[in-house]
Amino acid sequence: MNGKMMLYLIGQIMRLEAILMLFPALCAAICREDLIPFLIPIVLLALAGTLLTLRSPQKRDFSAREGFLTVGLSWIILSLFGALPLFLCGKGLSFIDCFFEIVSGFTTTGATILGGVPQTIISSFPKGILFWRSFTHWIGGMGVLVFVLAILPRSDMRNTKLMYLMRAEVPGPKVDKIVSKLTHTARILYGLYIALTALEVMLLLCGGMSVYDSLVHAFGTAGTGGFSVKDAGIGEYGSAYFDWVIGVFMVLFGINFNLYYLILCGHIGKALRSEELWWYLGIIGASVAAITVNIVHMYTSLPEAIRASFFQVASIITTTGYSTVDFNAWPTFAKTVLVTLMFIGACAGSTGGGIKVGRVILLVKNGIREIRYSMHPRSIISVRSDGKKVDHEIIRGTTSFMIIYLLIFIFSVLFVAALDGFDPVTCFTSVAACLNNIGPGLGMVGPAGTFAPFSALSKLLLSFDMLAGRLEIFPILMLFSPSAWRKR
Amino acid sequence: MNGKMMLYLIGQIMRLEAILMLFPALCAAICREDLIPFLIPIVLLALAGTLLTLRSPQKRDFSAREGFLTVGLSWIILSLFGALPLFLCGKGLSFIDCFFEIVSGFTTTGATILGGVPQTIISSFPKGILFWRSFTHWIGGMGVLVFVLAILPRSDMRNTKLMYLMRAEVPGPKVDKIVSKLTHTARILYGLYIALTALEVMLLLCGGMSVYDSLVHAFGTAGTGGFSVKDAGIGEYGSAYFDWVIGVFMVLFGINFNLYYLILCGHIGKALRSEELWWYLGIIGASVAAITVNIVHMYTSLPEAIRASFFQVASIITTTGYSTVDFNAWPTFAKTVLVTLMFIGACAGSTGGGIKVGRVILLVKNGIREIRYSMHPRSIISVRSDGKKVDHEIIRGTTSFMIIYLLIFIFSVLFVAALDGFDPVTCFTSVAACLNNIGPGLGMVGPAGTFAPFSALSKLLLSFDMLAGRLEIFPILMLFSPSAWRKR
Repeated sequence: MNGKMMLYLIGQIMRLEAILMLFPALCAAICREDLIPFLIPIVLLALAGTLLTLRSPQKRDFSAREGFLTVGLSWIILSLFGALPLFLCGKGLSFIDCFFEIVSGFTTTGATILGGVPQTIISSFPKGILFWRSFTHWIGGMGVLVFVLAILPRSDMRNTKLMYLMRAEVPGPKVDKIVSKLTHTARILYGLYIALTALEVMLLLCGGMSVYDSLVHAFGTAGTGGFSVKDAGIGEYGSAYFDWVIGVFMVLFGINFNLYYLILCGHIGKALRSEELWWYLGIIGASVAAITVNIVHMYTSLPEAIRASFFQVASIITTTGYSTVDFNAWPTFAKTVLVTLMFIGACAGSTGGGIKVGRVILLVKNGIREIRYSMHPRSIISVRSDGKKVDHEIIRGTTSFMIIYLLIFIFSVLFVAALDGFDPVTCFTSVAACLNNIGPGLGMVGPAGTFAPFSALSKLLLSFDMLAGRLEIFPILMLFSPSAWRKR
Repeated sequence: MNGKMMLYLIGQIMRLEAILMLFPALCAAICREDLIPFLIPIVLLALAGTLLTLRSPQKRDFSAREGFLTVGLSWIILSLFGALPLFLCGKGLSFIDCFFEIVSGFTTTGATILGGVPQTIISSFPKGILFWRSFTHWIGGMGVLVFVLAILPRSDMRNTKLMYLMRAEVPGPKVDKIVSKLTHTARILYGLYIALTALEVMLLLCGGMSVYDSLVHAFGTAGTGGFSVKDAGIGEYGSAYFDWVIGVFMVLFGINFNLYYLILCGHIGKALRSEELWWYLGIIGASVAAITVNIVHMYTSLPEAIRASFFQVASIITTTGYSTVDFNAWPTFAKTVLVTLMFIGACAGSTGGGIKVGRVILLVKNGIREIRYSMHPRSIISVRSDGKKVDHEIIRGTTSFMIIYLLIFIFSVLFVAALDGFDPVTCFTSVAACLNNIGPGLGMVGPAGTFAPFSALSKLLLSFDMLAGRLEIFPILMLFSPSAWRKR
């Protein structure tokens, strides 16, 4: 076990967080707010990070196991320090609440404990703090380790085994071949990410949104997070233009970034041949149509019903969690469609969460193959994706992922139900919303609700679920496995 | 495609149903009730069955596909004719309602449309009709085709390919080796089944239950069905003795019948080494303990809470569905445990439904293997069960089964929600209760509720779910696949 290398990487990440926290501190300075809540964690992170990175380790061996452990640990450390500004801002929140809120930020979940009581309504918080809260979405969306890979000096990159880091952090059943040149790839991914975010900010500015609001909402969209600085979410603007801009950008950020890379390289045809893309767009189209028919009687006109339905479908399938209406009041059918979308999630290799469209396609195709196989036991039928035969290992990994995912889901629902005893819909959808990194659920945790009433233990478990969902289970689960820590 | 052989087997099954219907007719005769509702279907079945079995087919080729199709078709035909007595008994029920009720009977679900309005309360029906309703549980529990195999003349059995029939009807991930001598095995299974049922009838008689009540409740327990002749279920007796006898027998009928066969042959040690058995008993023990702690404050004494908890856990994990209390009024934690048990189900090779404990163990073990594999990609780790390595094909089949199962589940919830628009808990648990062959769910379909308010289309879909659940999906799904019907 190469502990020195792990500590070195964690140090790099802490230094990075110190730098990133300068942005909200700058925002606080512009708004003439208290800077102490930012200065304390910045100093702590810079000190610890510098100490850990004083000497670049000689031995650069790095295994998949160490990659997973490093990623899991980093995200927990990031969240612990990231919770400090919120904890120190003088609103009297408990540290568990702040930790929950920032884990929800970094994992791009968007579940919030704010707004339950008058003293915690969102608009009463300092602008710098809310900027940091939304900024964590943007940081967590693309992944912190991918960022570190993008900025690490070239000398550190001689060992390509660091690819395991990326594999542990980038969502989806497989990491595509563009990952072969790590630093290069990481930089391209971040370049695309920044460009798309900037485009959204500009479009929001054009519609008349303030610079501050445009930035935080673009962060929330880009990371598919969902924190808003408005008490009633995006609905507070009551603007069809904002709804459509944010809605379309949510869909765009739910697409595999490899496809943008392909388009950038001029391989538009290849990008458009992606099966996952068409399934993703097809599911969105079908869901919007079905929900519109179901809710049209609740709205004054068809276009309004389409707008509400599109925004909510885009928000839920990409696991963003913004809301313009209280969909908790929609009929059971529409709610069931939304809960199903919660689990499907966005495309692999995007900033979105959930099971991922690519995995769902694989699972469905494998199911169909199994039916055909049971009819004709002597035939050889293989699962194909994008015209190519899918490796057996990937199918096995995908089905197993699904099972572990379900087990964590059931265990969490049982645990939350036992601890807090809320109604079944609240228990079920609060876990679904956290594990899939959505944000709001139904019942008490609907768009108009908050996670504040949950007990501290439930909040810790839900934080675990958010991390497990964002890192696709293995890195977080491994932290609890003694054999993962064993030397050999 | 050997259509003649399929029709011949279906004819045998129709003749068998005519004979089995003589028992409720006898009951009706003893109670001096109208015999017409039984005589019409008996004559129809006997005629059609005799016509189809006039000539034993020459060609005896039989493939897995034909086995599945025969089983799927037989169960639908059995249910169509089986619904006639209920339809003709003068209570004015629609044919869809009668079909739903009898499918629920044969599939050992126990979901009922009776009791919603005063004219359909259970105790107002003729005794012969209720006898038939419970008797379908007993017939469906062990499987009709297994019965046909047990009674078919030896000359018909020269082709061992008929094993496919058994494989399609006996629940579980694999059919054990005792199935090698088909007729023999089928007879032993039915012998055990009759002996255990008789033992329960005797114990109930000893407790002072009437002959009629003992018989119908033993049928419901043996088939893990759940229809009662009492309006308030087993709770109406208010007897701890009956609760414990029926509770223990539910657990016994949820155990793999192969184990009883092993014990019968003197291989007690081998039977006790079954992993599935210990998991099954362990899950029951843990669930009873957890629920007892959760509900003890609602009962006057600890023994009463244990009794209620044990009875309900036994009833739900074996997918019987009897109830002594309205568990819909229990806290969310207890209800979540019960819903989880709904999906786990009983042991493979028992009369119970659900996913089956054996499959769940395989899925969990496979998940653990996958975590270890992701840590040590170069290691070779295999899944072991009862000390033996599990064949890769079985794992693949099990994970695929799980996926198709989930897809049917989600689709059904969406469909029912769209058609009837009931609350989420009702939509979710009504499908769970039907697909897993339990009977009662939560919300409107709780132990005190009924399925009568569902629309005709929802009832048809739920009937499909019950059949898919009982026959483990493939035989029913195949009926809708054009390629399964194709000649080659």
